[in-house]
Amino acid sequence: MKKDKPKYKQIIDAAIIVIAENGYHQSQVSKIAKQAGVADGTIYLYFKNKEDILISVFEEKMEMFAENLKVILKENTTSSEKLFKMIENHFNVLAEDHHLATVTQLELRQSNLALRLRINEILKNYLVLLDTILKEGIENGEFDPTIDIRLARQMVFGTIDETTTTWVMNEYKYDLVALTDKVHRLLFKGLKA
Amino acid sequence: MKKDKPKYKQIIDAAIIVIAENGYHQSQVSKIAKQAGVADGTIYLYFKNKEDILISVFEEKMEMFAENLKVILKENTTSSEKLFKMIENHFNVLAEDHHLATVTQLELRQSNLALRLRINEILKNYLVLLDTILKEGIENGEFDPTIDIRLARQMVFGTIDETTTTWVMNEYKYDLVALTDKVHRLLFKGLKA
Ligand SMILES: CCCCCCCCCCCCCCCCCC(=O)SCCNC(=O)CCNC(=O)[C@H](O)C(C)(C)COP(=O)(O)OP(=O)(O)OC[C@H]1O[C@@H](n2cnc3c(N)ncnc32)[C@H](O)[C@@H]1OP(=O)(O)O
Ligand SMILES: CCCCCCCCCCCCCCCCCC(=O)SCCNC(=O)CCNC(=O)[C@H](O)C(C)(C)COP(=O)(O)OP(=O)(O)OC[C@H]1O[C@@H](n2cnc3c(N)ncnc32)[C@H](O)[C@@H]1OP(=O)(O)O
Repeated sequence: MKKDKPKYKQIIDAAIIVIAENGYHQSQVSKIAKQAGVADGTIYLYFKNKEDILISVFEEKMEMFAENLKVILKENTTSSEKLFKMIENHFNVLAEDHHLATVTQLELRQSNLALRLRINEILKNYLVLLDTILKEGIENGEFDPTIDIRLARQMVFGTIDETTTTWVMNEYKYDLVALTDKVHRLLFKGLKA
Repeated sequence: MKKDKPKYKQIIDAAIIVIAENGYHQSQVSKIAKQAGVADGTIYLYFKNKEDILISVFEEKMEMFAENLKVILKENTTSSEKLFKMIENHFNVLAEDHHLATVTQLELRQSNLALRLRINEILKNYLVLLDTILKEGIENGEFDPTIDIRLARQMVFGTIDETTTTWVMNEYKYDLVALTDKVHRLLFKGLKA
């Protein structure tokens, strides 16, 4: 697997920095190679093109995020607590890495349809986790059984996402993770039975 | 005022179609002129450049939207009902014009910082209206006085916005306006005292 080769992660990490600092459209493959400290040709051993790098960045980071979350979702705790952990993890991952936050909140919002469809396919991995929490909460009686799962998922993701974008546009100047409790309270109240 | 000249609105309407169909980056000023049925040079009598056209499209449509909303916000009715009207109006404006919806949900999400700051300045006109509803609802006892207005505003806008983007990505195949009631119910429950 290419993904197991040492330079794969090195290029991914470099790409996050270059894309966050220059914007996706001004991030030539050669800039990413330079940041990663590899030859331009090396990049093409791992990635087809720049689009493939952007997709891989998201895929790689989403995989790590989803792995963590799956462990949490198996814990023996309430659905409310699982929702809390989901919000907290989301904020944590992005608060710890401002470059990553700039990429998720601004650079991944590509309007090119083919690219956007690939990005949104990866986003599904996140939304499926949310659905799991929502369905479980309905089954165990914590959440209102009449809620529409799709709209509830769009509310939860939409709220977390908008909160994060506002924080990015405000140049990360307040503590995002500290908002977890208030965001959770608003959302849980909307969902609860 | 340039805005009062007949060709101003004609160019704005043409720009919405061209940008929705081609994407902002592939929407040359000459394409917009052709769609509007005016000479290329005419465009520059009204707009400095393509960026100025995009901003003006949003500004013009937001102005109309905000005018309508302000009338509603003056009505003698509950804050819950005002929130309902806000959601309904938002969905209505975009459901009636798929080109406009593509522009607001995909093409206005520019990562170029200077352009984005100008776009978000216009978005403020929308968010201020939401704040008005939220503050009034707290004052009259309908909404929970302990909610954080900024986060509540981000929840309401984030939910409406994510619901709309999902509808656009699903190629407008279900009725967006028909979701008003369910979206309102979820949000109002989260906000209420
Ligand atoms: C074709 C057009 C058709 C239009 C027709 C109309 C149809 C319906 C409408 C359609 C809408 C579609 C919109 C499309 C918009 C495209 C743009 C997007 O991507 S939108 C989707 C993505 N979303 C975005 O891009 C929106 C991102 N947000 C923003 O850029 C800004 O919030 C703002 C510019 C919108 C408002 O700015 P501002 O007025 O400054 O208000 P703030 O509250 O931000 O800040 C005030 C102060 O509070 C601080 N603070 C804030 N929160 C917290 C907190 N939780 N804890 C602690 N502190 C917090 C903050 O640091 C600041 O402090 P200081 O500086 O005073 O010290
Ligand atoms: C650097 C990476 C770091 C990552 C680390 C991780 C850190 C945390 C995560 C960070 C997240 C940041 C994400 C950045 C993402 C960038 C992309 C965005 O802009 S996101 C922000 C903007 N948001 C977006 O761009 C997301 C837009 N959404 C989508 O593109 C899709 O929903 C999807 C692809 C996400 C899921 O698709 P799918 O699995 O298909 O599920 P659907 O439910 O959509 O559809 C299923 C069926 O139900 C129908 N239906 C749906 N709703 C309704 C309804 N209310 N009424 C009636 N019907 C409805 C629908 O027509 C369909 O029917 P059919 O076809 O089966 O007949």
